[in-house]
Parts: sequence; C-alpha cells; structure tokens
Amino acid sequence: MHDARPHQVHGVPQAAAGLVDALRARGPRVHCITNTVAQAYTANVLLAAGCVPSMTLSAEEIGGFVASADALLANLGTFDPERRAATGVAVEAARHHALPWVLDPVFIDRSPPRAAFARDLVARGARVVRLNHAEFAALAGGAATHEAAIAYARATGVVVALSGAADLVTDGTRTLTIRNGHPLMAKVTAMGCAGSALVAACLAREPDAVIAAAAALVMLGVAGEIAAERAAGSGSFAIHIIDALAALDADTLAKRARVAG
Amino acid sequence: MHDARPHQVHGVPQAAAGLVDALRARGPRVHCITNTVAQAYTANVLLAAGCVPSMTLSAEEIGGFVASADALLANLGTFDPERRAATGVAVEAARHHALPWVLDPVFIDRSPPRAAFARDLVARGARVVRLNHAEFAALAGGAATHEAAIAYARATGVVVALSGAADLVTDGTRTLTIRNGHPLMAKVTAMGCAGSALVAACLAREPDAVIAAAAALVMLGVAGEIAAERAAGSGSFAIHIIDALAALDADTLAKRARVAG
Amino acid sequence: MHDARPHQVHGVPQAAAGLVDALRARGPRVHCITNTVAQAYTANVLLAAGCVPSMTLSAEEIGGFVASADALLANLGTFDPERRAATGVAVEAARHHALPWVLDPVFIDRSPPRAAFARDLVARGARVVRLNHAEFAALAGGAATHEAAIAYARATGVVVALSGAADLVTDGTRTLTIRNGHPLMAKVTAMGCAGSALVAACLAREPDAVIAAAAALVMLGVAGEIAAERAAGSGSFAIHIIDALAALDADTLAKRARVAG
Repeated sequence: MHDARPHQVHGVPQAAAGLVDALRARGPRVHCITNTVAQAYTANVLLAAGCVPSMTLSAEEIGGFVASADALLANLGTFDPERRAATGVAVEAARHHALPWVLDPVFIDRSPPRAAFARDLVARGARVVRLNHAEFAALAGGAATHEAAIAYARATGVVVALSGAADLVTDGTRTLTIRNGHPLMAKVTAMGCAGSALVAACLAREPDAVIAAAAALVMLGVAGEIAAERAAGSGSFAIHIIDALAALDADTLAKRARVAG
Repeated sequence: MHDARPHQVHGVPQAAAGLVDALRARGPRVHCITNTVAQAYTANVLLAAGCVPSMTLSAEEIGGFVASADALLANLGTFDPERRAATGVAVEAARHHALPWVLDPVFIDRSPPRAAFARDLVARGARVVRLNHAEFAALAGGAATHEAAIAYARATGVVVALSGAADLVTDGTRTLTIRNGHPLMAKVTAMGCAGSALVAACLAREPDAVIAAAAALVMLGVAGEIAAERAAGSGSFAIHIIDALAALDADTLAKRARVAG
Repeated sequence: MHDARPHQVHGVPQAAAGLVDALRARGPRVHCITNTVAQAYTANVLLAAGCVPSMTLSAEEIGGFVASADALLANLGTFDPERRAATGVAVEAARHHALPWVLDPVFIDRSPPRAAFARDLVARGARVVRLNHAEFAALAGGAATHEAAIAYARATGVVVALSGAADLVTDGTRTLTIRNGHPLMAKVTAMGCAGSALVAACLAREPDAVIAAAAALVMLGVAGEIAAERAAGSGSFAIHIIDALAALDADTLAKRARVAG
C-alpha cells in the first residue's frame, strides 16, 4: 500500500494525540482576553482539557498575568477603549516574555475600526489568527480562498486557521485541511472563541504553530462529534462536548482525526 | 359547537407556530444590549430558535451593528454611563433604520434613575416593553393591574408584556393572556432576558407587536413545559429548555399554546 | 461510647441542615460583586439554594441595591478602577445597614495591588474571607498553615475559610475542618465564587459566622458529592451540582456532613 500523505500530515493526528496528554499532564495557563459572552464557556473548555484559564481584563493588571502565563488569546469580541488598551499591554508582555499568542478577530467584517486593529495585531506578531471567511475578507482585503489564505500567511508570517465546511491551517508553505466537527458547534455561543483558546493552549506545548493549531481544531472537532452522538439539542450538546473533551483519550483522537494535506 | 374566542386570539397559536418556522428558515439577527449575567444564555436561546445574536456594547461600534441587525433588545440589567450612552446610540440607529426594538427594564423598581431612563426609552419608541409587576409599578407609577397596563399601552403606544402567574400582552385595544410556562423558569438566571430577546426576534418577522410578543412568550413557555417533564432540577432544566426550543415543531406549539382574549 | 467532639462541632451538620430549609423558606437576597466569568453560574447556584441574587456593579446604583439586600459578596476577580469604586460604595452601605459581607480575594497572589485592596477590605469589617492557600499567603504574608489562619483570624476579627484538601474555618478560637466535596469542583469555573456567595447567603440567616461559613461549604460539598455520582465529566457535573443543591434535603445533608473540630 502506498501512503501518499506527506510527512507533516501523517504526523498531525499523532501530534494532536500527544498534545491531549501533554495538556493534561502539565496544564498550561492561558490568559484569555475575551468577550463577556464567551468567558465562562471558554474557561470550562480549557479546564476540561487540563489547562488553567485566567481572564483579567484590567489594563493595570494584565501585564503581570500574561507574564506568568504560558500563552495568550486576544479575542476582539468586545471592543472598547479599555479593552483595546488592555490588549496592547498584554501583547507587549507576550512579546517581552516570548509567549505565543493567538488572535481571534471576531466580527471585524462588521466594524472597520476592529479590522484595522486586527491588522495591527497581526503585524505585532500573532502566531496564529483564527477566523471565518467573512473575517478573513475584512482582514486581508479579498475573498477567503485557500490561495488567498496561503498568500496572506506567507506575506505576514502568521499562521492562518480559517474555519469553514472544512478548516484550513496554513503557514504559507504547509497547508492542512481538517474535517472534524459537527454542525451543532455553530449553534452554541462561544464555541469558536473556546476553539481559539485551545489553539493558544496547544501553542504553549507545541512550538510548530501549524501542528498546534491543527491539533486544537481536531481535539475540539472530535469532542464535538462524540457529543453530537449523545445530545438532544444545542443545549445538551454544549455540555456533552465539555464532558467529551475531558474524557478524550489519545487513541480515540488519533483514530477519529480527519486531516489532509 | 360555539367558539367564543375572538379572531386575533384564535390566530395567536397559529401565528406562533408560523413564527417558529419563520425564525428557523431565515434567522433574524438580534442585537442585544444586555447584562453580562444574561449574555451567554440569551445568545444560546436565540441560536436554538434559529436566530443570530450579536452583543457588542461599545458606544463607538453599536450603531453599525444595529444598522445591519433585524431587531434590537435594550435590557437595563446593568446600568452605568457607558451602557446608557450605548443604549442611546443603539435606539437612535434603530429609529433611523426603522428597526423594531424591545425594552426590558430590569430592576427599575430598585433604582429611580433606571426608572427615569426606562420612561424616556418608552417615549423614544420602544415597540414592546416586557416587565414584571414591580417593574410596571415603577414605570407607570401605580399598581400593575390589567386595567393599568391597558391604560399605559393606550397612553404611550408601547405594547405591554406583563409577566406574572399568567402573562398579559396588550396594546391598549387588544389584550391577551398567556398561561404557558413552568415555575422552574423563575429559578434560572437570565430566563426573562432570554424571553425578551425572543420577543425582539419575533418582531423582526411579525409586524403586529401584540402577536409577536404573545408568540415569543408561548414559544418559551411551551419549551419550558416540555423541559420540566425531563429536568431533575433547575440546572438540567436550563439545558433542556434550550434543547426543547431547538426541537420545537409548529404542531406541538399550536397544540400546547394556552392563549385567551 | 465517648464523643470527643466539642459542642459547636456536633452542632454544625444540624445547623447546616437547618440553613438549607431556612434559605428555601425565606430566600435572602445576596448582592454579588463578582467577575463576569462567574456571574451566571453564581446566580444559578444562589437560585437553586432558594436565594435571590442581584449583581449590579455600577457605582451610582450599588449602594441602593446593597441597602435593600440581606448580605453582600465582594469578589475581587475583576479589578479595575470602576469595580474598586463600586466595592468601596457597597462595603460602606453594608456597614451602614449592618449587613454581613464576605470577601473572596481571587488571585491576589498574582497582583500586589489586589492584595493591598484585600487587606484594606478585611480591615473594613468583612465577616468572612474565603480563599485558597496561595491567596492566604498573599493576604497574611506567610505560609497558609492552620496556625497562621487561626492567628490571622484572631488578629483581624475576620472568620477565615481556607479551602484545600480539607476546608478550614476559624474565628481564632473555634476551628473546624470540613471534608465534603469532590475533585471535579476544581474543574468548573466559578465554583469557588459560587461557594463564597453561598457563605454570604448563610450569613444572612445565621449570625454565627463560623457556623454560617461551615454550613455553606458543607452544602456545596455534599451537592458536589451527589453530582459526581451522576456526572460523565466536568460539563455535566456543573449542571448536576445545581440540581443536587436544588433537591438537597436537610436529612441527607446532616448525614453526609463531614465536619471535625
């Protein structure tokens, strides 16, 4: 039998499986700048994966919290002068302490000032940007094709994790598609934000940002598939996915991962 | 057999059933100004009904979000200078774009400045005000009798949706009472706020505000009755009601609706 | 058989059982200054126990809300100038109206300005301070031993409720250890905050702060043990513990309480 999958694709399910164990063994602390809608669910998803969330948004304190964290999530879901200031301080602290950080540019397609702020954050060294097609178009100024995502990643140095029917992860050179997940994930508020927080958590344990981003999306996607088998609707689904993530074992993850190059 | 129910009452269960399908077929976007306690649950209730929530509170962005939304909820659950400013901008945008909007004057009975702000918002064109007896007394300056609600609606032009043992909906001319729901609904935080958000969603698809408000209260009430049959307490009830809302079909709704003129 | 337990220890399970009924019979209103991550879960825990939560944080309104409440929780989980100002107003209102209040000095070990603010709040008359070992060390300036907690309580007049493998409650004279609870409680965000809110609720009905704090910890701990028997992970555990608290009866509580002097 001939295995046509390139090496890095072949390795992603195994890397994701390894990360499930790594997060549980030594849970990284992930500082999350996220909107108030998403905070509690994001915290519970991180806890289920073995991580430690912190969520302070005060500009005067956030530098210290980021300095002692293992990764940072900057979600633009709420956008006001205080939040912008806190994000600036947090990103500066992340740079200073060489912490990996993820940008989730929520709803920048609906707000030009957010889009401008997101472009500035990419330029300031976000390791991964996780976004949907409309947000990508607002960020990069063009349709969200695979080619555009690859070109944007190459031009800016950020790893693009583009969600859609299949998720795309690219650093401009390597490109993966991930087909895990379930439609109910779109019916639970904060699911995307929680996914971005998991990307940050994986970056704390896996320096290759393509692998880390893909692994996080596979983890949450597989948990979503397991949860959907048990759920009676979006309410119970939101609960089952946390249970599934908490119970996820490396073998199940490796078997269910659907990653292609 | 003689059917003594007036025409508009006869029609409410059917209108509610039609709205269940209409929300799912083309989910309106509902912008919610709501307190941080209620945001996540409100978003999940709207998603379960087929709608798209947005929740930005920043005064500099909210105008744009409202302009592209289909309905607006203004909940006074948190009341500070920034929130007041954002509410003013949002209401102005709703007027300018002829968007229907709902006022939920939470706890105005405990705070005279909130009550004054709520009266001003009614004067600025809220289509529906949804509130409990104590809040009505603070708004209208008298006991929350049916007669007082009818008189207030007639005097101000707002549709009053007064919650209680039975819910009352009146525009001053037509008056409906709705007897759906379950006592566990009072044991879940944000249930009232989520109900007001559903009223806003129904207003986006049904121009008759009496029908829209009654339909939303029937939907959530019926979902509550179904959830109560499955719940082991207020924790699981909060989850089951989202599942029940997501699974609600038009026939079940029409059969279970308890609306009288 | 010789019963070596001192009288007040013997009485705690009975007092806790009595408080379960007292909270349900005449639910105290507990005003909670708490972080946005914890607000919804804290509100649902209080509702399940029969209490009425309120959560306004606006400095201009909070005085009125506290004046008409039965107890106050001051949680430092989010710390910014506005929240500090609101906390100052709320504590002043609590003093003026002789309302008992609880301090939960979240994460003061990570932020020296928070720790200084917490010390000031203890000096301003917090009845109970509920915290973990790292937070105690930041508050009292030394390792979180039982002896240090007892000395701190005696020196300051605050009742210390120190969480850990076993919980310790001391007023400097009487010291109790409580061994109820389950490890899953550490996997749900806001569980500690919700526990502190229950302490405030019990203080509204039980003037002896040692008894009130111990009773609240027993209540939540026993609910956690029951929930763990039913849960498939941290997601369903968070829901089951609310159901268990809502269904808790005085006999079960008294039987399961594990309190020692």
